[in-house]
Amino acid sequence: MIRWLSIFCLLITTADLQAQHPLTFFTKTEAATVKNDLAKYPLLKRSYAGIKKQVDEWLDKDVDVPFPKDPAGGYTHDRHKSNYMLMFNSGILYNLTGDARYALLVKKMLLKYAQLNPGLKKHPEATSSSPGRLFWQALNDANWLVYTGMAYDLVYNGIAAADRKAIEEGAFKPEVDFITKDLSGWFNLIHNHGVWACAGVGIVGIATGNKEYVDMALYGSAKDGKSGFIAQLDGLFAPDGYYTEGPYYVRYAILPYYLFANALQHARPELKIFEHRGRILQKALLAGLQQTNIDGTFFPLNDALKEKDFTTNELVTAIDIAWAEYGEDMGLLTVAKKQDQVLLNKGGASIAAALTSGKEVPPFYPYKSVEFVDGVKGDEGGVSLLRAGKESDLTTLIYKYTAHGLSHGHFDKLNINLFDKGNEVLTDYGSVRFIGVEQKYGGRYLPENDKYASQTIAHNTLVVDETSHFGGKEKEAEKYHADKLFSDIGRSAVQVVSASTDKAYKGTHLQRTVYLLQLPGGKKLVADIFNIYADTAHQYDLPFQYKGQVIHTSFKYQAHLNKMTALGSKNGYQYLWKEAEAKVADSLAQFTFLNGRTYYSISTLVQDSATLLFTRTGANDPNFNLRREPAFIIRKKGKDQSFINVVEIHGKMDPVIEISSQSYPSVQQIKLLQQSSDFTVVQIKLDGKELLIAQCNKDFAPKTKHITGNEGRKLEWAGPYAVWYEGKQL
Amino acid sequence: MIRWLSIFCLLITTADLQAQHPLTFFTKTEAATVKNDLAKYPLLKRSYAGIKKQVDEWLDKDVDVPFPKDPAGGYTHDRHKSNYMLMFNSGILYNLTGDARYALLVKKMLLKYAQLNPGLKKHPEATSSSPGRLFWQALNDANWLVYTGMAYDLVYNGIAAADRKAIEEGAFKPEVDFITKDLSGWFNLIHNHGVWACAGVGIVGIATGNKEYVDMALYGSAKDGKSGFIAQLDGLFAPDGYYTEGPYYVRYAILPYYLFANALQHARPELKIFEHRGRILQKALLAGLQQTNIDGTFFPLNDALKEKDFTTNELVTAIDIAWAEYGEDMGLLTVAKKQDQVLLNKGGASIAAALTSGKEVPPFYPYKSVEFVDGVKGDEGGVSLLRAGKESDLTTLIYKYTAHGLSHGHFDKLNINLFDKGNEVLTDYGSVRFIGVEQKYGGRYLPENDKYASQTIAHNTLVVDETSHFGGKEKEAEKYHADKLFSDIGRSAVQVVSASTDKAYKGTHLQRTVYLLQLPGGKKLVADIFNIYADTAHQYDLPFQYKGQVIHTSFKYQAHLNKMTALGSKNGYQYLWKEAEAKVADSLAQFTFLNGRTYYSISTLVQDSATLLFTRTGANDPNFNLRREPAFIIRKKGKDQSFINVVEIHGKMDPVIEISSQSYPSVQQIKLLQQSSDFTVVQIKLDGKELLIAQCNKDFAPKTKHITGNEGRKLEWAGPYAVWYEGKQL
Repeated sequence: MIRWLSIFCLLITTADLQAQHPLTFFTKTEAATVKNDLAKYPLLKRSYAGIKKQVDEWLDKDVDVPFPKDPAGGYTHDRHKSNYMLMFNSGILYNLTGDARYALLVKKMLLKYAQLNPGLKKHPEATSSSPGRLFWQALNDANWLVYTGMAYDLVYNGIAAADRKAIEEGAFKPEVDFITKDLSGWFNLIHNHGVWACAGVGIVGIATGNKEYVDMALYGSAKDGKSGFIAQLDGLFAPDGYYTEGPYYVRYAILPYYLFANALQHARPELKIFEHRGRILQKALLAGLQQTNIDGTFFPLNDALKEKDFTTNELVTAIDIAWAEYGEDMGLLTVAKKQDQVLLNKGGASIAAALTSGKEVPPFYPYKSVEFVDGVKGDEGGVSLLRAGKESDLTTLIYKYTAHGLSHGHFDKLNINLFDKGNEVLTDYGSVRFIGVEQKYGGRYLPENDKYASQTIAHNTLVVDETSHFGGKEKEAEKYHADKLFSDIGRSAVQVVSASTDKAYKGTHLQRTVYLLQLPGGKKLVADIFNIYADTAHQYDLPFQYKGQVIHTSFKYQAHLNKMTALGSKNGYQYLWKEAEAKVADSLAQFTFLNGRTYYSISTLVQDSATLLFTRTGANDPNFNLRREPAFIIRKKGKDQSFINVVEIHGKMDPVIEISSQSYPSVQQIKLLQQSSDFTVVQIKLDGKELLIAQCNKDFAPKTKHITGNEGRKLEWAGPYAVWYEGKQL
Repeated sequence: MIRWLSIFCLLITTADLQAQHPLTFFTKTEAATVKNDLAKYPLLKRSYAGIKKQVDEWLDKDVDVPFPKDPAGGYTHDRHKSNYMLMFNSGILYNLTGDARYALLVKKMLLKYAQLNPGLKKHPEATSSSPGRLFWQALNDANWLVYTGMAYDLVYNGIAAADRKAIEEGAFKPEVDFITKDLSGWFNLIHNHGVWACAGVGIVGIATGNKEYVDMALYGSAKDGKSGFIAQLDGLFAPDGYYTEGPYYVRYAILPYYLFANALQHARPELKIFEHRGRILQKALLAGLQQTNIDGTFFPLNDALKEKDFTTNELVTAIDIAWAEYGEDMGLLTVAKKQDQVLLNKGGASIAAALTSGKEVPPFYPYKSVEFVDGVKGDEGGVSLLRAGKESDLTTLIYKYTAHGLSHGHFDKLNINLFDKGNEVLTDYGSVRFIGVEQKYGGRYLPENDKYASQTIAHNTLVVDETSHFGGKEKEAEKYHADKLFSDIGRSAVQVVSASTDKAYKGTHLQRTVYLLQLPGGKKLVADIFNIYADTAHQYDLPFQYKGQVIHTSFKYQAHLNKMTALGSKNGYQYLWKEAEAKVADSLAQFTFLNGRTYYSISTLVQDSATLLFTRTGANDPNFNLRREPAFIIRKKGKDQSFINVVEIHGKMDPVIEISSQSYPSVQQIKLLQQSSDFTVVQIKLDGKELLIAQCNKDFAPKTKHITGNEGRKLEWAGPYAVWYEGKQL
């Protein structure tokens, strides 16, 4: 009897929940708690006041719902974008204040959309394969559905039945139909666009009580589970939470992931969506945060705008929901404090409370050395973040050996980037795009994005014969990933990752092993051993995109003084001005630059001969779309080749007290003592001391013993690598 | 009887003071107060702890006093530089702790200098006309005297008489003799070097009780008052405190000015040095602070490194002394808070106390529109800072019509610079120098400083026939200054300054009038009317050095795609790459760029024809000494010519929410309605509204009535200018 009663109660509750509004953003109970907390926690109060100020300006005004006309950056685009945030915020205020004017504002706008939407066709500025109706691309229409769906749900109780019908059929149905039917292929994509599309349709489904919409959102338009939100949770992340498009796009996708999961948690709690796949949403968020610089900007892997940091709305939303779902986390609190705003929901209120408590919040996110795998099964390469130092003195070496990363991927297998003290030192151009700027092709990706920024030469990895990896063909690149050979990131003295690919170029095996070393005394340096094994002779270019000013070179170069030409004619080379070049032979070539207040020196071993190039972006750029950025390129020729480089972090230039310390590199000599298919042994002399690196090129078993060298000098070690400093193994 | 007694007491006191040590940095009584305050005020405590940590590291060590060998940035240079600060700080600690080890440290170092100095000859790296001995230039030797003199005085009581003699005769006398005799011409200069030299000799004089030294320091080596510190107080500042070398160098000179004045206040209070010339030292400090950007960096007029801001040691010193001498000042407190360190003296303790009080300190220095005159009598032109907006939204238009500014002056008569929201928008290159970097010519000014940065084309003012003002000859430039014709900076709607020169080029009269306007609704813009009257035909270039990315132009241009050449061959033109050019005729040419999150548009009237050039620095730069910076150059030909430009500040690009607003300029048309020797009348149409500017070109009397126009449109106004917006006079 009691058992039956329980089941009966459960049914009632579920039915209640189904009927209840709001459900998407928060519930009635949650809203009441937030309301109650408003006065208590300053950050919550400020966040509330900020929204209220924005919305109150519109309370007595007639908000324009214009016929779509302009691309991003233009009036109609920005108006519709502002409109959905205005409706959403007004909906929140309706629940927190009970003031009917907020519901009225939303209702009036929704009724205008109900008039507008049924008559819409493809947007006049649409250029992509997924055109929008309200906006130039369907992605923005999906954004609109996410926020407008929540807004409708939030004011549902304040709208008369007849109006509800008009809105559901006029404002929402045409958009949902368009996206799920006309654009069903796009809707079913396992891609950040698909996540937005499913979240939009699903949230509207919950808001309007339309089970069909929610089911399509969860399981794809065919409802077979091959696509839809669940498939996106399963298909876009590696098991450890790495998002295959890279950190810039997880920042973007995390928002619909969390908002839709949050709505599902209220509407379909039985899904236990936040527990799905071993809490994949929590892993995704934490992996995204690890992939940021100490200033909070996301590492610019693949297409990425460098301005985006973890204070964006997307991360505020994800963190505030995660805090409530997964519990307190000091790292999240550090980020939340920098965000200096919270959502007006349970998590936001709880974070605001934690920040009010007066407890010390650490100044930096708890960054650590970490490796992420790529691919659904985690078997498609990955990315390693090697870190040394802490807080404002953190050094991060990024080594990327992932899969391609879908349509926003770059041709940059075995690429490295270096961040130090919050500065980008060895850089990635990011993407060529002025987001939201109408004059720059409506804020879309510019032609130079494909033609330059995604090409191999725009990165810090090897280019063979002036062509990009996989011939610069996305379809080909999608088939392969690089492979990690071995790594060891556990000890601060030596961190190492080795990876290879033999698919980037036909008949060519590329193998790069990077070491982040912290020598006794604290000196940090990167040792970079790039071995190439090829069937035939080629030209090899290894670029270092650096940020900083040229201070010194150990070699003489010829600068192009009165006249400058482009370095090449295709595959990105046409965008580089050749500022200077040098021919060097049998030497140690060193180049020192200054970035911020720190010196960086690249010491490169030239065994036979090499050409060294100083280039700068900006050639063949008729619309000034590119920033002017320098690179230092090491060019060698041959069949099998090795690039042995040491990147040293040294000294300090203090322009205030006008003192420079350790402005010269310590490296005095680099010798390649052995280079065979079995081993590479490199001897580096710095400050009169010997740094010796031995690594295996074939046998990466963790414990195998190796012996090499000759009678004069025998080297013995176990495992895939060994590093000695002044004769002592580190 | 009482009167006699007073005089007797006064004599005693003076004698006491003379004999007493320390006297230069602080007195015994002052030291006791500071000691007493240490525990009370966190900032004072932190400043003390910082110094103590530095000095304590050396207490048990033997400090090297090497034989001078290296240029700036090299070991011996930096060691001697560190040494004098170490001795000075150790001297302070001796007085605050009573710990004899601090005196011992200084004594041991001074005895080494007493051994070293008598044998020194000209420094092996000396290249200037004022070579040093301990350092490559005498200026650094003067720095050494200032701090070492104070150090000696601070530990005087802890040194035995025999050692004192050795130090005074071995360490100080050779340096003082060298500077006052061998380099007497340099010592007697009315120039920042001279200020340092006199302060050094004078402080050593006070420390060693050597009246001769103090007298030479005060009145020049001939003691006739034609040079020396008093003459420097009288000769380097305008009556309002403007320092003729510009803000970067007042930052540098303010330190010896204040330190020597501080020492004199103790040793020769009868001089009332801080009251001298109507408190010229206070005026100098406040004028220097007004010439900073909201981030604290000094405006880069003349030779200037842009990294220098008001948190440097020089300004900490000046502010802490000024606070004690001239009383509390909320503006100084704002700066002191940003400095986050204080001197361990009376003023420093008092500032630390004020910052402990919990009283709110304004976030920004109290910037205002202000005009400074140049020249000892204030009759050699000047500089106007027009400001609009406040706090982080401050706009500053700098208009420079000064004298040349001695050896660090640039050939930039009638130059403008624009700062907005803390960003440099229309820029000045500053100087070409990597201070303290040995690899860059020992940290000296680089050849490109004279050849590019000081040339007219590196600025935002008119270049005639590709030659610099005054033929680029300093001697010629020193003879002249520009003249202000009229100005009005009192009203926020319209601020205006007009100035002219007919000496920059022979037979050519240049007259530029700049308006900083804030229209009803808040829009800020600069109207820039540059009239040229010449005897013969010339080529005129008006460059706008801008910082930002090209967003849009209203005109078609030809970009140089595969090959780029230098713009010219001399007078700075050889350093500019010609990236793109356009020929335009009879039109309004508009160029929009994005800087930070704000759009800026330059709208220029082309009445007949003009060439528009996009350039970038970096040509003919074989050592990569120049930063790569862009300029937009308007080139016209003719005899009399007018350049009518409107620089608009507009819109916002928010990459985080991805919305751009008002990204297009408002200006739709510019018409030169009248251009005569009497009047210039310009009509600007923006957003469909009319902005009308009428100005007098000859009669600048403040109240004269003017009538111009024709029957269709008659204009009447009083005074040198009038501005109407939508028919209403602003």
